Amino acid sequence: MRRIDLADAGFLYMEKRQTPMHVGGLHLFTLPDGAEATEFLGQCLEVLRTDEPYRKPFGDYVAHGRAGALGPLYWEKDRNFDIDYHVRHSALPQPGRFRELFVLISRLHGMLLDRNRPLWESYLIEGLQNRQFALYTKMHHAATDGAGAMHMANAMYSTKKSDRSERSPFSLAAYEEYKARYRAQKQARVVPRGAELRNVSEVLREQFDTTAHLLGALRRFGGAFIGRGEGLAVPWHHVPHTSMNTNVTGARRFVAQSWDFDRVRAVCKAANGTVNDIVLAMCGGALRRYLISQDELPKHSLKAMTPVSLREEGDLDSSNAVGFIVADLATNLDDPEARLRRTQESMQAGKSLVQSLSRREAMLFMQITQVPALLTSVLGLASRFPAFSTVISNVPGPREQLYWNGASVDGMYPASIVFDGFAMNITLVSYNNKLHFGIVACRRSMPQVQRLIDHLEDALQELEEMAGLVPGGSQRKKAPVSRKKTVSRKKPVARKKKAASA
Amino acid sequence: MRRIDLADAGFLYMEKRQTPMHVGGLHLFTLPDGAEATEFLGQCLEVLRTDEPYRKPFGDYVAHGRAGALGPLYWEKDRNFDIDYHVRHSALPQPGRFRELFVLISRLHGMLLDRNRPLWESYLIEGLQNRQFALYTKMHHAATDGAGAMHMANAMYSTKKSDRSERSPFSLAAYEEYKARYRAQKQARVVPRGAELRNVSEVLREQFDTTAHLLGALRRFGGAFIGRGEGLAVPWHHVPHTSMNTNVTGARRFVAQSWDFDRVRAVCKAANGTVNDIVLAMCGGALRRYLISQDELPKHSLKAMTPVSLREEGDLDSSNAVGFIVADLATNLDDPEARLRRTQESMQAGKSLVQSLSRREAMLFMQITQVPALLTSVLGLASRFPAFSTVISNVPGPREQLYWNGASVDGMYPASIVFDGFAMNITLVSYNNKLHFGIVACRRSMPQVQRLIDHLEDALQELEEMAGLVPGGSQRKKAPVSRKKTVSRKKPVARKKKAASA
Repeated sequence: MRRIDLADAGFLYMEKRQTPMHVGGLHLFTLPDGAEATEFLGQCLEVLRTDEPYRKPFGDYVAHGRAGALGPLYWEKDRNFDIDYHVRHSALPQPGRFRELFVLISRLHGMLLDRNRPLWESYLIEGLQNRQFALYTKMHHAATDGAGAMHMANAMYSTKKSDRSERSPFSLAAYEEYKARYRAQKQARVVPRGAELRNVSEVLREQFDTTAHLLGALRRFGGAFIGRGEGLAVPWHHVPHTSMNTNVTGARRFVAQSWDFDRVRAVCKAANGTVNDIVLAMCGGALRRYLISQDELPKHSLKAMTPVSLREEGDLDSSNAVGFIVADLATNLDDPEARLRRTQESMQAGKSLVQSLSRREAMLFMQITQVPALLTSVLGLASRFPAFSTVISNVPGPREQLYWNGASVDGMYPASIVFDGFAMNITLVSYNNKLHFGIVACRRSMPQVQRLIDHLEDALQELEEMAGLVPGGSQRKKAPVSRKKTVSRKKPVARKKKAASA
Repeated sequence: MRRIDLADAGFLYMEKRQTPMHVGGLHLFTLPDGAEATEFLGQCLEVLRTDEPYRKPFGDYVAHGRAGALGPLYWEKDRNFDIDYHVRHSALPQPGRFRELFVLISRLHGMLLDRNRPLWESYLIEGLQNRQFALYTKMHHAATDGAGAMHMANAMYSTKKSDRSERSPFSLAAYEEYKARYRAQKQARVVPRGAELRNVSEVLREQFDTTAHLLGALRRFGGAFIGRGEGLAVPWHHVPHTSMNTNVTGARRFVAQSWDFDRVRAVCKAANGTVNDIVLAMCGGALRRYLISQDELPKHSLKAMTPVSLREEGDLDSSNAVGFIVADLATNLDDPEARLRRTQESMQAGKSLVQSLSRREAMLFMQITQVPALLTSVLGLASRFPAFSTVISNVPGPREQLYWNGASVDGMYPASIVFDGFAMNITLVSYNNKLHFGIVACRRSMPQVQRLIDHLEDALQELEEMAGLVPGGSQRKKAPVSRKKTVSRKKPVARKKKAASA
């Protein structure tokens, strides 16, 4: 029985029937050459169902203390652990395209996890075309964050096609081995993990090296509200109302797509921006197009909450170590270069603010400045006073081609959380020279969310033209055909057709 | 905006994350000769997604009044109705046996419906062997009861293989036509439906023809508690504690099986019992075997709540018109004949009690005597003070072979509700000379529930021997092989193997 950190427990307290608080990942694979599908998938299921000690808290359920559901929460070992409940075998109906896959993931992602059991489920999915199969895993955000999920995926897969593993993805032993490998690779001195983050008032009582950093940061943060922000974008300040900022229902839409990392890198180099800058500019351009098509482009620009990891290098154990910077997406500007520069400026200001703080101060700062957002959510006011327009999260993933018992890992698409006031979430993972985008939205608030995929491609082409990488004007080049094994974009000619509904 | 009857709204108030309050039905079909599967199922999906006015409340969502979630509830038209959300296309993984089907239904049946939308979902399921496919529909118990669901199925199907329908199962027009047909067939004067049932205190204020019936019934009911029951079994009285009477988790197990109606009818005739008596004796015998195998046979007999329909003939509109009789399953008796007689006696006493009342009095009586059960449930005491051991419900279905656009309807398996204190529910439908059993249980409380299927067969064979229909003793005949197109029992030789876990 271990008390759950307040930062983690928040995701349990805030969970409602309409707003499950789990994160998901959809991984795509191709069967190894010559492997027989039923036999190979049977072996995969056996691996997923391996009975061995799990890393915490994936063998634990959430227990209440004496104070009940709103008092402190605890992780307690599930002595009735039932692996067949957690590992599930599913199939797609004919014709087994990505469309059918996304419909299934949309459905699975909208369902609450069972609080009586460890808070995760895995679905091995057959019935895809081209000898592909998929694994969708959902885990409660109280148990892990995006970077933590990436480390778990890394621990599960291998860079060698010939490697075989009989370890569950949640295996404690496999994870300890992975950590040892990871730390050896990094050859960095690993600082022992400090005391777990306690709640704000407890921490405030302690002494910082200097409180000046924190007070200075809060002063700059406050200054942005009264127009002295030096490019810093802050929550609530001129955040417009759109269909993205409504209260959400329990149903979701999930869409995903991969882009070549090299295309984005080329724009970075030519336009002098970071990968994150260009990704945000893609999203800003896509959202501007989307809002125009929905006839609801607001006067003020959309603001995106972009989570930043506050994990120390080598900290593979924290379940949640996330702060945020507010990016100005400049959706009110038509010129792509002006949009990019405005976004860069806001990111730079946010980064310099976070960097002025120690990691511990940064986490405290994030907690203090997030308190109003928690309050408006709990009070049901988030859709009336949106703190941000959307969440855009960029999670660094493994760089090399990975394999799962010989099956190539073709794509890793994250599926994150939407909440009242934030009806859409864009998360991307960089893996094997591709950027894998996963977009989750409330099914009712954003029924046309799948169009964002085309808009993202258009926005990237626009940035390529801006950077002089491709000829501009009305004769845009067609996007290079995606590798078959990742989710392929609809061809531009098909765009005028009514988008398929999930 | 129509106020929801208190009897119906109770299912909404009592619903929790672990105890969804919907009823489901799994219907099995065989593709018409020569039909191409993908094309035919595509047509079925189109029919299911037909856009037309729906019968109430299947186009409505649950709205709160000013008093909030615990005040009166209302049905309100869903102006964002999204048919693709409600009608879903699913598939079974290989090898597509009934086992894979039951695993999927177990999963779907354990998930809450979305309160933001009309409270139903339909799943068209492909991937079964032998050119079969399935339709699983779940509907909130606030919207319909078992008999109501049967009428809907009747309205959807046809006795003619050649008939084609383009009407949704929830079509208002189709239902009006069905009602007209049904009433013409019955050639009975249909009494206009009275005012909707209001809550107990309101009704108490009204005048009955005579209050003597009701008071007499309550007196007999009370008498059974102090040993003057004349065979009447009553809730709480000597109800033993078993694994069936625990608090339940959110996960379910569903199993189903068909038996030839003629086998049961033959026992009825030879042993002088009603179909319901013999079905209850089958269940009693099966539960006795199950409890012995789990090493938990209690000293006192299990008591089953057996719902009885209080619908008037021709009342196709009430969503809930259900009372109950408590059946003594006599699981403490080894002799099958003694068990049967004890069960018959308790059913006879219960029926004579209900029959002494007018329909309206009976409904009131049921409400009064159910109040303590509602209270123990709401107070979380149902597992400590179980009112019944289980629920066994026998729903009369259509007698003739039915077709859905030419596809034969092979089986109709009900999936009902479990609740704290009642971790298992057995519901059966008589259709086309078969009895179709659907058993739902809490996955954690009764992990071995699938064994009940074999125990039910054993119990029926025992009754056949008792009635002199087959040679008795240790050389029991093997059960006749079930028709391929309904769920086939495992062969007796395979019984010793560890039962497959769902």
